[in-house]
Amino acid sequence: MATGKINVSVENIFPLIKKFLYSDHEIFLRELVSNATDATLKLKHLTSIGEAKVEYGNPKIEIKVDKEAKKIHIIDQGIGMTADEVEKYINQVAFSGAEEFLDKYKDTGKDAGIIGHFGLGFYSAFMVADKVDIITKSFKDEPAVHWSCDGSPEFELKESDKTERGTEIVLHIADDSTEFLEDARITALLSKYNKFMPIPIKFGTKTETLPKPKDAKEDDPAPTREVDNIINNPDPAWTKKPADLKEEDYKNFYRELYPMQFEEPLFNIHLNVDYPFNLTGILYFPKLTNDMNIQKDKIQLYQNQVFVTDNVEGIVPEFLTMLRGVIDSPDIPLNVSRSYLQADGAVKKISSYITKKVADKLNSLFKNSRGDFEQKWNDIKVVIEYGMLSEDKFFEKAEKFALYPTVDGTYFTYGELEAKIKDTQTDKDDKMVILYASDKESQHSYIEAAKAKGYEVLLLDSPIVPHLLQKLETSKEKISFARVDADHVDNLIKKEDTTISKLSDEEKEKVKEQIEAVLEAHNGFTVQMEAMDSSAQPFMITEPEFMRRMKDMQQTGGGGMFGMGNMPDMFNLIVNTNHELVSEILNTKTAKKRERLINQSLDLARLSKGLLKGEELTKFISRSYDMIK
Amino acid sequence: MATGKINVSVENIFPLIKKFLYSDHEIFLRELVSNATDATLKLKHLTSIGEAKVEYGNPKIEIKVDKEAKKIHIIDQGIGMTADEVEKYINQVAFSGAEEFLDKYKDTGKDAGIIGHFGLGFYSAFMVADKVDIITKSFKDEPAVHWSCDGSPEFELKESDKTERGTEIVLHIADDSTEFLEDARITALLSKYNKFMPIPIKFGTKTETLPKPKDAKEDDPAPTREVDNIINNPDPAWTKKPADLKEEDYKNFYRELYPMQFEEPLFNIHLNVDYPFNLTGILYFPKLTNDMNIQKDKIQLYQNQVFVTDNVEGIVPEFLTMLRGVIDSPDIPLNVSRSYLQADGAVKKISSYITKKVADKLNSLFKNSRGDFEQKWNDIKVVIEYGMLSEDKFFEKAEKFALYPTVDGTYFTYGELEAKIKDTQTDKDDKMVILYASDKESQHSYIEAAKAKGYEVLLLDSPIVPHLLQKLETSKEKISFARVDADHVDNLIKKEDTTISKLSDEEKEKVKEQIEAVLEAHNGFTVQMEAMDSSAQPFMITEPEFMRRMKDMQQTGGGGMFGMGNMPDMFNLIVNTNHELVSEILNTKTAKKRERLINQSLDLARLSKGLLKGEELTKFISRSYDMIK
Repeated sequence: MATGKINVSVENIFPLIKKFLYSDHEIFLRELVSNATDATLKLKHLTSIGEAKVEYGNPKIEIKVDKEAKKIHIIDQGIGMTADEVEKYINQVAFSGAEEFLDKYKDTGKDAGIIGHFGLGFYSAFMVADKVDIITKSFKDEPAVHWSCDGSPEFELKESDKTERGTEIVLHIADDSTEFLEDARITALLSKYNKFMPIPIKFGTKTETLPKPKDAKEDDPAPTREVDNIINNPDPAWTKKPADLKEEDYKNFYRELYPMQFEEPLFNIHLNVDYPFNLTGILYFPKLTNDMNIQKDKIQLYQNQVFVTDNVEGIVPEFLTMLRGVIDSPDIPLNVSRSYLQADGAVKKISSYITKKVADKLNSLFKNSRGDFEQKWNDIKVVIEYGMLSEDKFFEKAEKFALYPTVDGTYFTYGELEAKIKDTQTDKDDKMVILYASDKESQHSYIEAAKAKGYEVLLLDSPIVPHLLQKLETSKEKISFARVDADHVDNLIKKEDTTISKLSDEEKEKVKEQIEAVLEAHNGFTVQMEAMDSSAQPFMITEPEFMRRMKDMQQTGGGGMFGMGNMPDMFNLIVNTNHELVSEILNTKTAKKRERLINQSLDLARLSKGLLKGEELTKFISRSYDMIK
Repeated sequence: MATGKINVSVENIFPLIKKFLYSDHEIFLRELVSNATDATLKLKHLTSIGEAKVEYGNPKIEIKVDKEAKKIHIIDQGIGMTADEVEKYINQVAFSGAEEFLDKYKDTGKDAGIIGHFGLGFYSAFMVADKVDIITKSFKDEPAVHWSCDGSPEFELKESDKTERGTEIVLHIADDSTEFLEDARITALLSKYNKFMPIPIKFGTKTETLPKPKDAKEDDPAPTREVDNIINNPDPAWTKKPADLKEEDYKNFYRELYPMQFEEPLFNIHLNVDYPFNLTGILYFPKLTNDMNIQKDKIQLYQNQVFVTDNVEGIVPEFLTMLRGVIDSPDIPLNVSRSYLQADGAVKKISSYITKKVADKLNSLFKNSRGDFEQKWNDIKVVIEYGMLSEDKFFEKAEKFALYPTVDGTYFTYGELEAKIKDTQTDKDDKMVILYASDKESQHSYIEAAKAKGYEVLLLDSPIVPHLLQKLETSKEKISFARVDADHVDNLIKKEDTTISKLSDEEKEKVKEQIEAVLEAHNGFTVQMEAMDSSAQPFMITEPEFMRRMKDMQQTGGGGMFGMGNMPDMFNLIVNTNHELVSEILNTKTAKKRERLINQSLDLARLSKGLLKGEELTKFISRSYDMIK
């Protein structure tokens, strides 16, 4: 048996970095600006504890692009490095003791006492540059040094005449990466990744207009001056204490995050937790549009103010991915697969913390300003209803604040609704029937019929409502939901008392036959004779709840019964045996006249249910014009 | 000045691999099965050219999971390695001469003469294992060897008593990766990544029922036997020549790709090109559902029969991402960002090749079986229309086969349409007006009015149609599109001849005032007096084309004029001064009766345009029931 050591020699390791380290070359800038930020914060820390006897001042980071010479400079005024430190952090650290390195990398918080990112992050420079210079002067009284490397493992190290403290990285951009020499590209990258980093980042200058001096003539141009163009906001709202922020500050930050968004957010949730994990952030409830897919990918994930991704799948529960805002946490593992993420204990805790905070916020909004909450309900209900459907814990919490609006604009909680309708809307089998409409306009006549009985009619119009009703029916005792057009209202909520029918059973049978004979041309109607109020409509078309709901569920994806989506719609034609028109039909002697009566009544019933269309509608209209004249 | 060598020592490089090499740990299995496949194909190559004097046989790859002992075995019957080769490929190759390694890696085609993947791919084993064994026997007459490594750079190498040719990899699964010891997980991974790899892959056995022997009694159970459970199809359809495949084979392959898909594909496009890049594949046009987002991510990308991803964004033009199927190409760079991909010359060529092939296929389908093509039009039009809108080259090609169906089910190409309507539908300003409807039912009366004039009415109902019309109008000379309800048909296509009005200008003015007085309650109608045919309807509501189209465009995203989406709808009320009902209104003396006439007519016009809803509709219906009696 032999043993040996795997020989990982590194002749030209850089192509490997280039190809495998990051899939996206553009992040080199994020990495280098992160290094510059860390070097600056480290100096701040050392001066604050008295370990560095220098003036911290108001340091900034500067990015310069020299298109002509194909160079990008990243200059900081931070801690700098001595020759020894360059040897230690640049020449050695990269791949030696990777485990230790990764540990360091992981713990690089704001105040971490190491030059963290120097190492692998730095080497990402070689993804875009074929030569890199480091010119650096430590805050310690030591000479500046100039390190230089062309991507082979050979480097050069010499003294430099740099006099200011800090580090300048010079990237000699490779021919396949010249896209990064465009100002517009760099501006875009900086505002994507570094928009909220804690040290001001300068990229070029801009012209600022000053107020005119008092003695200026009217035609004199206003004086101007060149000022630094700072591309970032080093103190974004989420890093502040909620107590220090006003409503306006949250709104301003929203506009900063989404400059192209004109609608104001409905409200925000400030996240702030230290234990058992570190997380800050602000989530916003936006006004939702109809297209739920457009809504996603609007939450940005940061690590210590460095942008990481806008895909928070797995970190934020799915129903909250429709929200917007920022989450900042050093505790979310990044270079792992999404499936791993979902199984990760820490991430699960983060996810349920966020769910809880959102539920708490909604509850306090509901309690503290119910009117306002009701006004916003229409814009937030999709998120809440989807959350109730997908997260059992949220379902429980939402019991307190989820609202059930009526068609008349009254908002009930479930408890209030139950108290209100329990007596009137419980049927003879002791089941409480909750009536709802999905559209006030097209179901108008059915709604009116239910209201005439003194019943409450909810307006539930989100696409996921059928699924939610299913869940509510199984989680509560002895209740059921029925859409107002599912049957004649007396059948929807069956009471003991029966209305007396003007017609005898024989007459009923006869008129039913008469109607069915005319109906033969219209497939799919089942005639149902009902003794209703004589002032109710003579004909009425209904659509049984169960089948319709199953079909609705299938259409909004998942649920329902398999294959039902393709089944034809089924309708009942309810005939009010107490209406005088029905008596008239029965007593009409001429078949032609009877047929006309039935057809016109059927057309009106179909019109009421939205079923009279196209050619039939055109004919109906022509006939009606004739009747006016 | 000093020079030196960057010291990339590799004490414990494995954590680095684990963290950075791949974001998804699960691909270790793909990498190892790829290695096993390559080792087998290499032997096939060597035997076929006579360099290996052994029987190739019917080799397979076997995967075994030993949950108890926490081990996964990957066993092949391929070329194997001698002790020297282990030294060369396992102990040395990984990170030495990365450039050379990458070159090799890149060129690893089916017949490449190197053991390509051994190297980085092999080391992905350490993402899930804390110890790995390689037990391997070369096809050469040399002793088998057993290599073993616990993730540190130290390895052990000893002789092994393995007698069969080939390599067995044993993964000692780490505690954080025990998920991979579940049979279901391995089955899922194999069918995700290795479903179409070219060597049979065995994972366990299954029971096969055999035919009963002739002398079996009726109650005897059918005999069974255990057979290898082969999880892959080593010869998927796309690797075959189109000439060797029948329609049924394509359909079967579709079912293999999408076992949960019950609808058959409409047709397929077999891709096959060698130069200037290598690409094979089969694309299918599926029946599209309404939700275009669900459609995406159905095309699978392979490299030499190894699954890579189902995100083909950037490789396939966007409008074709709604298709399904497989693309296999070694020439698509994988470990680069999507933005880089879109700029890559080779990828651009691939994308335009695919576009061209799709256009050619559509053209030949159209030419060879127009009837069939017309029947499928409704299912494929969204893809074609979207392609016309987004890719100029496709727009040009589609001129030949893009169809414009009429409401009566006749399908015209643009050229045919022009020939048909040029004479009748050119207005007095020499502009050809193409009439269309977006809904046969709700625009029925308007369609009838246009047809009564002898005009053709197209049925254009895709959501992106407004955008496409805009493009067609700007790319063709002197044409415009108008929806049938945009105005009275005589105004849509203005001819020289004018209809004589029964009413004098004075009378017109008077009846207009009468109508406007009643209309005050209904905002948003502009009254327009027109001398139309006396048999046309008395009242008619129209919606001007320009505003409506801009609003439609905004609703389907992009285009249109900014902010228009929120503007109120604008309608015209056209009054037919030649209709006797209008004369009757003029001559009615009692204001109340006149008001009733106007209101009832207005209700009917609104009904015809789908504007009479809710309470107003319910009232209209009640009134109408009264009129029947």
